[in-house]
Amino acid sequence: MIVAGRAAASETDVTIDQDSAAWRQRLSARAAAAPASGIAEVMRHGFGRAGIIPLWVGEGDLPTARPICDAAAQSLARGETFYMPQPGIPELRQALAAYHDRLYGGLFGQAFPADRFFVTGSGMQAIQIAITLATGPDDEVLVPTPAWPNFHAAVGVAGARAVEVPMHFSPSGWRLDIDDLKAAITPNTKAIFVNSPSNPTGWTASEENLRGLLRLARDNGLWIIADEVYSRFTYDTQRLATPSLHALVAPDDRVLFVNTFSKNWAMTGWRIGWVEAPPAVGPAIENLIQYATSGVAVFMQRAAVCALNEGESRLAALMERTRKGRDIVVEALGKIQGISFASPGAFYLFFRIDGVTDSTAYATALIEDANVGLAPGSAFGAGGDGFFRLCFARDPETLALACSRLADRIARP
Amino acid sequence: MIVAGRAAASETDVTIDQDSAAWRQRLSARAAAAPASGIAEVMRHGFGRAGIIPLWVGEGDLPTARPICDAAAQSLARGETFYMPQPGIPELRQALAAYHDRLYGGLFGQAFPADRFFVTGSGMQAIQIAITLATGPDDEVLVPTPAWPNFHAAVGVAGARAVEVPMHFSPSGWRLDIDDLKAAITPNTKAIFVNSPSNPTGWTASEENLRGLLRLARDNGLWIIADEVYSRFTYDTQRLATPSLHALVAPDDRVLFVNTFSKNWAMTGWRIGWVEAPPAVGPAIENLIQYATSGVAVFMQRAAVCALNEGESRLAALMERTRKGRDIVVEALGKIQGISFASPGAFYLFFRIDGVTDSTAYATALIEDANVGLAPGSAFGAGGDGFFRLCFARDPETLALACSRLADRIARP
Repeated sequence: MIVAGRAAASETDVTIDQDSAAWRQRLSARAAAAPASGIAEVMRHGFGRAGIIPLWVGEGDLPTARPICDAAAQSLARGETFYMPQPGIPELRQALAAYHDRLYGGLFGQAFPADRFFVTGSGMQAIQIAITLATGPDDEVLVPTPAWPNFHAAVGVAGARAVEVPMHFSPSGWRLDIDDLKAAITPNTKAIFVNSPSNPTGWTASEENLRGLLRLARDNGLWIIADEVYSRFTYDTQRLATPSLHALVAPDDRVLFVNTFSKNWAMTGWRIGWVEAPPAVGPAIENLIQYATSGVAVFMQRAAVCALNEGESRLAALMERTRKGRDIVVEALGKIQGISFASPGAFYLFFRIDGVTDSTAYATALIEDANVGLAPGSAFGAGGDGFFRLCFARDPETLALACSRLADRIARP
Repeated sequence: MIVAGRAAASETDVTIDQDSAAWRQRLSARAAAAPASGIAEVMRHGFGRAGIIPLWVGEGDLPTARPICDAAAQSLARGETFYMPQPGIPELRQALAAYHDRLYGGLFGQAFPADRFFVTGSGMQAIQIAITLATGPDDEVLVPTPAWPNFHAAVGVAGARAVEVPMHFSPSGWRLDIDDLKAAITPNTKAIFVNSPSNPTGWTASEENLRGLLRLARDNGLWIIADEVYSRFTYDTQRLATPSLHALVAPDDRVLFVNTFSKNWAMTGWRIGWVEAPPAVGPAIENLIQYATSGVAVFMQRAAVCALNEGESRLAALMERTRKGRDIVVEALGKIQGISFASPGAFYLFFRIDGVTDSTAYATALIEDANVGLAPGSAFGAGGDGFFRLCFARDPETLALACSRLADRIARP
């Protein structure tokens, strides 16, 4: 009976697979080719496991602060449930401008104007819009890797091509070689993606790095898509934020900043972000928002205003906790033989284990044997295999436990 | 001084225009070509005018019902602010399946399975995903017009081409000629967009219409993108919903349903909708959601579950009010010399004024002279010029006042 049952199940599987293959052929090439996330693959393996410590996602373990949630609830209670202006409500665009003034002391010697800011339904959507603005079919975007895989995939869905330019690893730091980027430029190149601090490597561009990138973009008429999502996660206690292109750009530079409320204000589940662009590009951005999701709920935007205007002390507390988490993982994993990593940035430790070549298989084994979930480095493109990404924006005790489990498992042959 | 001031202002305008043109050239062709909405153009002219009656948008005048808002607020208070499953939370997918069971009595002789439903960040995003699934660069989608312009524009942003197939107007009804569609098919045609009840014309497909469309799609290996967003706005009191492809499709048919919570539950400002598709297409849809906005906030989804499970009596009341609005505008505008229209569906009256050829100019004049905002028919593609769309999902008294203002203005030479 059991054998028959198995046979039946397996036949069903075959039917489903054939069915999937037939449907896949009916889809457009770009939809069929959109890759599944390599992080999700490992997560599926460990999801729901008793006692697992999930450090695979770029998400803290604290819910959104109450005042931010209340701002949304109060807006709902006021009946703010109608269509909204496509670029965002004026109050939020103004709050974004003021926030940037506080961080960067203005732009081009003046206060940031509100009309540089366009509210989007997630940082991911900000990226999607930036890609559409900068590229057409068969155009190329240079992506220093390892990099967040969603950028690469979104370029593909948009019909363009992400060209991976591997960065150079040593325990003294990841290094971006501008000449590598330069060598990868072709007549089809339209943009460079710059993610600093980097997810997953933690690489944080110096002003000199940013100057080099800007020069390269200017010399070649390229856009820069600047993802400074983790800019507030600076471990230099003298700074409010990591070095930014905001300090270097001229009015004529083709820079599109993409950002999100997710990380700074523990709002990952909200799906709200922004694009910052020259105001002259505004009408095109408004149209792209219109034809993508047609705006962001007003009550969400009220919450975002609250985050910007009242969230600074909580962000400082979150940073303090993240700094502690960073110290714990650096100390614990730094002691393990055969592990190497550069000084971590953003809220990730990206470490290599000597002798590991298949990150996905090893990450799966870590779930089975250590009950710790990490993102496999192979998911982040060229140069990532053999590495693992650990998110340390978590409760310090849990992090310590995870590290001790990892140390036990990695010590085993 | 005043003259000098004017000159300076005008020089600034020229600078801004030149600046805009220069930036436009730096954008991708598809971003630069994304059209502004013809409805928005007229709205900008009248926005904020004292006493204007705005009937230009497809939006009722009632806020979202309190229990739906409360469901979101309670979810926020529970701390449901983390990342969510890409296709939607199981509770909402299940509630969508149960809702469709109630409307259509199952699918293929069984209950609707929850894994046919994929939650999206608006009906607009459902359309964007459907277009990406069905088309690649240079592919064509047939669009019976007049039609909601956002569909046409989203096809363009995706690098494909919307081919307009005008429907035939007479006061006895708009007519879709399947042979017109057939004649428009080329080797590049990949899909047909079917919006019934139609925004803006109110045309509501009969079962025979739908059978003809399905046959055409089957014979030519085409997808149907079925927008039945207004299906609950039926003026046949014997029915819960207008005729649907749900009653006709076979498991092998390539039909992608796109829908939204906006209209039925007065949730226009929320930005939440769904795609319904064969489950085998699910992995591709999940990837496209991942690389567009990466899901919809859980607290929004809790509100949507509440709408589906507890919203039916409110929807009935909304329908009753909309029916009243429809009666008012049909009676009032039906009396005016030189106006003609077919029996209205969805929640729009789409009427022609004899002798008017430029809808946009006339809609602007109606703002100035009658203080009533209508959407110009020209915004809806081929066959729409000379027409105006009026949304009657509004307070009956306001509608009566709007009609009397329109009658006065139209009577003038």
